[in-house]
Amino acid sequence: MDKIKVSLLGSTGMVGQKMVRILSSHPFIELTKVSASPSKVGKKYEESVRWIEQGDIPDQVKEMRMVSTSPEDHKDVDVVLSALPNDLAEDVELKLVKEGITVISNASPFRMDPDVPLINPEVNWEHLQILKHQRERKGWKGVMVKNPNCTASIMTMPLKPIFSSVSSKRTFITTLQAVSGAGYSGLPFMAIENNVIPYIKGEEDKIPKEINKMLGKIEDGKIKNANNVIYVTSTRVPVKVGHMGVINVELQEKVDPESVKRSIREFKSLPQLRGLPTAPKFPIVLRDEEDRPQPARDLSEGMSTSVGRIKVEDDILRFVVLGDNLVRGAAGITVLTLEVMKELGYI
Amino acid sequence: MDKIKVSLLGSTGMVGQKMVRILSSHPFIELTKVSASPSKVGKKYEESVRWIEQGDIPDQVKEMRMVSTSPEDHKDVDVVLSALPNDLAEDVELKLVKEGITVISNASPFRMDPDVPLINPEVNWEHLQILKHQRERKGWKGVMVKNPNCTASIMTMPLKPIFSSVSSKRTFITTLQAVSGAGYSGLPFMAIENNVIPYIKGEEDKIPKEINKMLGKIEDGKIKNANNVIYVTSTRVPVKVGHMGVINVELQEKVDPESVKRSIREFKSLPQLRGLPTAPKFPIVLRDEEDRPQPARDLSEGMSTSVGRIKVEDDILRFVVLGDNLVRGAAGITVLTLEVMKELGYI
Amino acid sequence: MDKIKVSLLGSTGMVGQKMVRILSSHPFIELTKVSASPSKVGKKYEESVRWIEQGDIPDQVKEMRMVSTSPEDHKDVDVVLSALPNDLAEDVELKLVKEGITVISNASPFRMDPDVPLINPEVNWEHLQILKHQRERKGWKGVMVKNPNCTASIMTMPLKPIFSSVSSKRTFITTLQAVSGAGYSGLPFMAIENNVIPYIKGEEDKIPKEINKMLGKIEDGKIKNANNVIYVTSTRVPVKVGHMGVINVELQEKVDPESVKRSIREFKSLPQLRGLPTAPKFPIVLRDEEDRPQPARDLSEGMSTSVGRIKVEDDILRFVVLGDNLVRGAAGITVLTLEVMKELGYI
Amino acid sequence: MDKIKVSLLGSTGMVGQKMVRILSSHPFIELTKVSASPSKVGKKYEESVRWIEQGDIPDQVKEMRMVSTSPEDHKDVDVVLSALPNDLAEDVELKLVKEGITVISNASPFRMDPDVPLINPEVNWEHLQILKHQRERKGWKGVMVKNPNCTASIMTMPLKPIFSSVSSKRTFITTLQAVSGAGYSGLPFMAIENNVIPYIKGEEDKIPKEINKMLGKIEDGKIKNANNVIYVTSTRVPVKVGHMGVINVELQEKVDPESVKRSIREFKSLPQLRGLPTAPKFPIVLRDEEDRPQPARDLSEGMSTSVGRIKVEDDILRFVVLGDNLVRGAAGITVLTLEVMKELGYI
Repeated sequence: MDKIKVSLLGSTGMVGQKMVRILSSHPFIELTKVSASPSKVGKKYEESVRWIEQGDIPDQVKEMRMVSTSPEDHKDVDVVLSALPNDLAEDVELKLVKEGITVISNASPFRMDPDVPLINPEVNWEHLQILKHQRERKGWKGVMVKNPNCTASIMTMPLKPIFSSVSSKRTFITTLQAVSGAGYSGLPFMAIENNVIPYIKGEEDKIPKEINKMLGKIEDGKIKNANNVIYVTSTRVPVKVGHMGVINVELQEKVDPESVKRSIREFKSLPQLRGLPTAPKFPIVLRDEEDRPQPARDLSEGMSTSVGRIKVEDDILRFVVLGDNLVRGAAGITVLTLEVMKELGYI
Repeated sequence: MDKIKVSLLGSTGMVGQKMVRILSSHPFIELTKVSASPSKVGKKYEESVRWIEQGDIPDQVKEMRMVSTSPEDHKDVDVVLSALPNDLAEDVELKLVKEGITVISNASPFRMDPDVPLINPEVNWEHLQILKHQRERKGWKGVMVKNPNCTASIMTMPLKPIFSSVSSKRTFITTLQAVSGAGYSGLPFMAIENNVIPYIKGEEDKIPKEINKMLGKIEDGKIKNANNVIYVTSTRVPVKVGHMGVINVELQEKVDPESVKRSIREFKSLPQLRGLPTAPKFPIVLRDEEDRPQPARDLSEGMSTSVGRIKVEDDILRFVVLGDNLVRGAAGITVLTLEVMKELGYI
Repeated sequence: MDKIKVSLLGSTGMVGQKMVRILSSHPFIELTKVSASPSKVGKKYEESVRWIEQGDIPDQVKEMRMVSTSPEDHKDVDVVLSALPNDLAEDVELKLVKEGITVISNASPFRMDPDVPLINPEVNWEHLQILKHQRERKGWKGVMVKNPNCTASIMTMPLKPIFSSVSSKRTFITTLQAVSGAGYSGLPFMAIENNVIPYIKGEEDKIPKEINKMLGKIEDGKIKNANNVIYVTSTRVPVKVGHMGVINVELQEKVDPESVKRSIREFKSLPQLRGLPTAPKFPIVLRDEEDRPQPARDLSEGMSTSVGRIKVEDDILRFVVLGDNLVRGAAGITVLTLEVMKELGYI
Repeated sequence: MDKIKVSLLGSTGMVGQKMVRILSSHPFIELTKVSASPSKVGKKYEESVRWIEQGDIPDQVKEMRMVSTSPEDHKDVDVVLSALPNDLAEDVELKLVKEGITVISNASPFRMDPDVPLINPEVNWEHLQILKHQRERKGWKGVMVKNPNCTASIMTMPLKPIFSSVSSKRTFITTLQAVSGAGYSGLPFMAIENNVIPYIKGEEDKIPKEINKMLGKIEDGKIKNANNVIYVTSTRVPVKVGHMGVINVELQEKVDPESVKRSIREFKSLPQLRGLPTAPKFPIVLRDEEDRPQPARDLSEGMSTSVGRIKVEDDILRFVVLGDNLVRGAAGITVLTLEVMKELGYI
């Protein structure tokens, strides 16, 4: 089988580097082009990147010459993956899509656009079907698919099976987010070491919206967003990788915690059923120990999330979820989204 | 005026050391005896302690000889302050009280005893009045006063004025607690550095009970506990000092956030009105910056707590509170409790 | 080929857990027994251990019943590996050896015994030859082999090739050691977070002695220790894993840094030449970047050490070395030592 | 007495903020003007600064309007203090001095200029006497005085009394430097947390030169630099404040460690003898505990340095020094330098 040729935008950033590593050993996706800021165009990848991933730069990428972000540099690939910073993404990605290129992107612009699917594969791969309407409605020659904010992608993992098995009134989420969520240089050591910052710009507003879009249904070719009432408080903690959410769900009626555990333990979706390469065996790992999940112990499986401390008190369901904000939250779902699109014939 | 003579149990621990420092410059309390584990009895304080407070051991304490915890060693003091570990406190403190000694203690045993006041001075100094019934009901010759768990003491500070000005259905608290709350050696670096542990033994059960006792009313000589519905999830974060609470209050009816801010800004109580030495000028400091309070910046005033991020959304009141778990949470309120008892003639 | 059957003492500690993981996938060593403190005897391994290694406990070990440390429990294995705490090791290991058992141990007792080889495989595998004299001299039925202190094992890696290619007057070492070197619970978070402790009990004395023993020559059946003059200052830094050494060597005469780099880059020893399973491809990785090696980036290869910042100024050779104190410093060399003994017919 | 009027360049940075705090309560220095980057000119200080010092911005400075760095904005002050970044300092300071203004600066340009005194008050206040030649030699209308690099200022404190009491062949220094030495945003959390970086650009070259200039003698109106042979390796450790140096001095002949301790304990200089406000009672605090000094415990006295672990082995004198890189290393010595200049009539 011919490999799918992809180029990568924002390839030198923290998320871009993770994608480079994931793709370096991928069975049917081949990274053929890497791109970054104009100043780096023409340079070798190894000269353009401050490599921070464990191990060395994959050989096949080391010597690649950086290309620009403009369409002509990406005509001969099947898909463009984007790990661009949010402020640059809008123009660049729009240009590419208008020129007929398929873009799968991690960046925030267009995430809430009703004609653009916001995909966390296990949660809402079905939403890809609106792509057939995207072209005419948008008048784009190409196709645009988005991945959610890192926190939203991790929180939706348990919310999907739980909201399918219980009826909730509203949900309170307090997040404890890792520093890498702000980017490699996002927070100075002096600002966050031995400290907690109980605020992250934009997050508290973005997360409920993205969750409700991902949990929405398709009705006559449109995504009808869910209307779960969700209140989020975001905090930044001095941890390198791993976003945690402490979640309290107000239920319509009391539930048996065991049935909730079962719905989580048994949760599988298309990526598991089709055995896609980047899909984790278990999308959600249920931890029974009273003090788990913990970032220092439960992130080895980058693509699976961990849930623990499940408890029902009165009509309140409480649990804690943890996920790798760089893999499940970004680089990994972009690659898995591409695998699903391939599997379903969108590519 | 004659100074109040006090002896200190658990004087070599982290909280004990803080009390030693606070008392070393106190206008009318004199630390005359220090006690610790049997092995240390007879030794000098400076030989018995691994001093971790900034600066050196106060001169007047350095040379003191450690005494035992048994009553005969504390007959000639006015009050015994206790910073004993919870597991040792029950027997020791009971013996002292039965022998006619007045004990003010940080340790957990008896905190929920209806005949023992659980005092966070600004919040419920009035509860001291049940002491006049304590003797006969308990048959004790002495008097016992307790201080709350460090988290409960910090959380009640804003809940007191807020619950007085709004009517709430229920309250969700997620805590981000500092490592010092587990004691100096409570957590190995290997366990908590670059990590979050979403569980603290006993806390989630203890906190709502203690809060409701402190917020209770006195009815015919008894404390009638409040019945606020409070759900707590406790997490441990890699921060040395400073317990934070992210609090969501479900309201009976929508309120104006400005009125909540006012009730917090204007909150004063007996310790402020009488200008007691250890009382902070403002029990609660209101922070208007969007990213405060923070442990690294807002703990300089050990006895005052900080509140920020106040927001009303639908019928939900959300805010963040932070306090020094060693001062407002322990050493400081014990001393302030003594000052209030003196002021009101209980001593 | 029959697998070598080994039992593991101290199997629930941090180093013990690493050995369990390394052995779980070993081509010709089979872990058949696990031992720990008396209280755990009879329990399953998974019930006895607080597992901290990434991933889960290897299946073949999970269910094993813990045995005691006494000889009768280890009669039917080929080798006993010991990750015992130093204070327990002497008696236990001596009993085993006297009973005819072969013990390879990480613990400090006997390390400086002239009749006991102190093995860091790439550095001094030849020292195993004194084993043929050990029995008669000691009157032991079994055999005892020791592995060095974690810091000494990492420091000797570059010192071996360097001292073979230059003649030195004396050597100054300042170590920056990770917290795991003190054991999982060795240092409280409160003691070392945001701090440096410029002292580690015993280290400064031990390190030069162990280095000189490992760099010694065999003369008529005895190890003749080297007599390099080495001054060590040990500091503890808030890092989880990775011991670093800043080394200044006073040379007899100026050398060309390139020749030093070559001697390091080309350093290989028996474990590499025989392709032993646990041997790293390169015992020493030479880093040319000006700011490497770093614990956060250069430990992925647990068994290889990294050297950087090589510089010659006047008659001073300066470089920085880094190694994984749990793998190259402990668990890994014990396994590699066993592989070498097998390869050379000592087992 | 009229207060000395000073203006402060770089007043919003980390060092600038420390100076603001130190000056806010100074007996005879009055901060009358604050300056920062052009974009902030005209704004209030409180609007221009991201205040990170404990406590609030001093009232007298809060409302001050930021001025530019150009001479006309500083004509009516007695002295300009500079906490400018190194890259901006040269032009700005030169302009001011040429216009007849007295500048005391922390920035690196001109530090090694033979006609510019590099002052660490206790160490070399005598060097101020070359100022009388500075004007004619430089043709400046004003006067320029420099303060040393933060590491050099801390290291010279013990080296001054030690080099006066022993004769040394050469000196090896390994530094463990705090993150604040790189500025508030100098290092991302992701780069240094749980890590050590064994390199700091420029330091290893700068430190010996500055030390030798400070330890130099005045000969016919010129500073004759000392020629101590000093080798420095600089490392960055995950600590917020406090630079540590591990120092090995090769002696001409063995010394008694007690005599070294005495020379350190008894070290006093003009700032102590004249009781200048910012002078610490003891410039060097001698720690006898085997595990001190430590950043977490020994920085309370910002202007004094701490020395511990003094040991003589053969002809090697070894000790560890620690100092506050923001106070003794920067803000504090600038103010103390001004106090000395006032005391000696240079102002």
